[in-house]
Amino acid sequence: MTEKGKLWGVGTGPGDPELMTLKAVRALSEAHVVAFFCKKGSTGNGRAIVAAHIRPGTVELPLVYPVTVEKHRKSDDYGTEISAFFDRSAEEIAVHLEAGRTVAVLSEGDPLFYGSYMHLHLRLAPRFEAEVAAGVTAMSGCWSAAGLPLVQGDDILSVLPGTLDEDLLAERLSGTDGAVIMKVGRNLPKIRRALERAGKLAGALYVERGTMANAAMMPLAERGPEPAPYFSIVLVPGWRTRPQARAEAAE
Amino acid sequence: MTEKGKLWGVGTGPGDPELMTLKAVRALSEAHVVAFFCKKGSTGNGRAIVAAHIRPGTVELPLVYPVTVEKHRKSDDYGTEISAFFDRSAEEIAVHLEAGRTVAVLSEGDPLFYGSYMHLHLRLAPRFEAEVAAGVTAMSGCWSAAGLPLVQGDDILSVLPGTLDEDLLAERLSGTDGAVIMKVGRNLPKIRRALERAGKLAGALYVERGTMANAAMMPLAERGPEPAPYFSIVLVPGWRTRPQARAEAAE
Ligand SMILES: C[S@@+](CC[C@H](N)C(=O)[O-])C[C@H]1O[C@@H](n2cnc3c(N)ncnc32)[C@H](O)[C@@H]1O
Ligand SMILES: C[S@@+](CC[C@H](N)C(=O)[O-])C[C@H]1O[C@@H](n2cnc3c(N)ncnc32)[C@H](O)[C@@H]1O
Repeated sequence: MTEKGKLWGVGTGPGDPELMTLKAVRALSEAHVVAFFCKKGSTGNGRAIVAAHIRPGTVELPLVYPVTVEKHRKSDDYGTEISAFFDRSAEEIAVHLEAGRTVAVLSEGDPLFYGSYMHLHLRLAPRFEAEVAAGVTAMSGCWSAAGLPLVQGDDILSVLPGTLDEDLLAERLSGTDGAVIMKVGRNLPKIRRALERAGKLAGALYVERGTMANAAMMPLAERGPEPAPYFSIVLVPGWRTRPQARAEAAE
Repeated sequence: MTEKGKLWGVGTGPGDPELMTLKAVRALSEAHVVAFFCKKGSTGNGRAIVAAHIRPGTVELPLVYPVTVEKHRKSDDYGTEISAFFDRSAEEIAVHLEAGRTVAVLSEGDPLFYGSYMHLHLRLAPRFEAEVAAGVTAMSGCWSAAGLPLVQGDDILSVLPGTLDEDLLAERLSGTDGAVIMKVGRNLPKIRRALERAGKLAGALYVERGTMANAAMMPLAERGPEPAPYFSIVLVPGWRTRPQARAEAAE
């Protein structure tokens, strides 16, 4: 009987290959198979980030999102179809694991932070040895590149998907100290209005492709109305001027 | 004239040395001086995490928190005293930078996420070249070790310091999907009551020294009343059973 292979969820970090962890590098060096989510006709960003660390001879397993995913996000069939896609993907991976091959699934940023990898993990971890290599999130990469701390001391940080309703966004932005708005893309005009309503547009920073070679950032208030790329985020500091001194080691 | 040295804010990750990034390793290989915050009589946890990557001959610069920090957190003098401590620490570092030495300041997890490093960055970045090496946060390390995703799709994640009032904690826990409670320590009984009031105690996971050699985790509901160590966190998933399938690449 063959010993079963191991499943790795590998956080690639936000874009700069130097933001990979040593654990991610090791996972790739152990992997017989590297799997990654991508859209039809693309090899995906995670694959590009880790390229230098994939051993020659490694099997590559693209997990191609069904086309519907890009269209009918709120339709009735969406849930069923995407669920079937994760079932299928998990089974493709299970075949390798059953055959004793170690499979590394790439995940941009941190695998369990709004990442599709979680759906494979929940399906496969009960059946196979599974380990998640935590990664640097997009928000950490972006605020580090900007040198912009969002929270300290007793501050609350809210992570808000830009897909939320404008009213809900405005309400949550009003009631928090620092905020990160993910999934910006075509939600940008709505996000800007919500920040304006919450009185927080002035401090907000827009970052696209943070830590990647073609990164850009600017105050959101100064950005034009054209839609943002998929890899874009808005950072809202929880303080107005310089953060007040707080020793973070103190309880 | 000597060229000035460079300031690095180096995220060490949450504890497991393998969760350091390649960039952190490079920063340490370039550093003439390694600085780290610590309490009197200890060399600090960040120093221990990166120990294997400090070159022989590197100057070590402990930045020892004034004793008051542990006592009078809400007192009037607190702000003044801790502010003076950061001023002094920045000046100690500036002496090295002026002399052309590269200084790496260690910061557990990610440097700008509730980290004392931010206060040095704000003081020194205007005067010297400064770069922040983003790190894996404690929360990412902990939910990865637990294999527990907290948020997906349109979920809101709230990061709440356990130092907040019980009423505010309970209110914010009720109004969010996923939550992370940091700075647990002696705030544990209050955090437990707040979770109970919000009806979210059942799903909450307690993790101490996550990703470190002596890590432990258990459902918070099952943990005894003894105070938690400084390195402890509570994770609250934003879903009750299995997360519904959501393709995270879809906008
Ligand atoms: C499905 S979420 C995945 C988040 C990822 N797992 C993480 O740990 O940050 C995708 C969103 O992350 C943000 N994002 C990811 N990489 C980014 C980057 N390099 N720059 C800016 N935003 C990024 C965008 O808001 C994007 O819509
Ligand atoms: C001042 S904050 C620093 C956070 C850090 N900069 C980060 O990126 O996560 C310290 C708090 O982080 C949490 N923490 C840090 N390391 C941890 C670990 N290894 N396990 C559990 N909690 C940890 C604890 O809640 C602690 O009170």
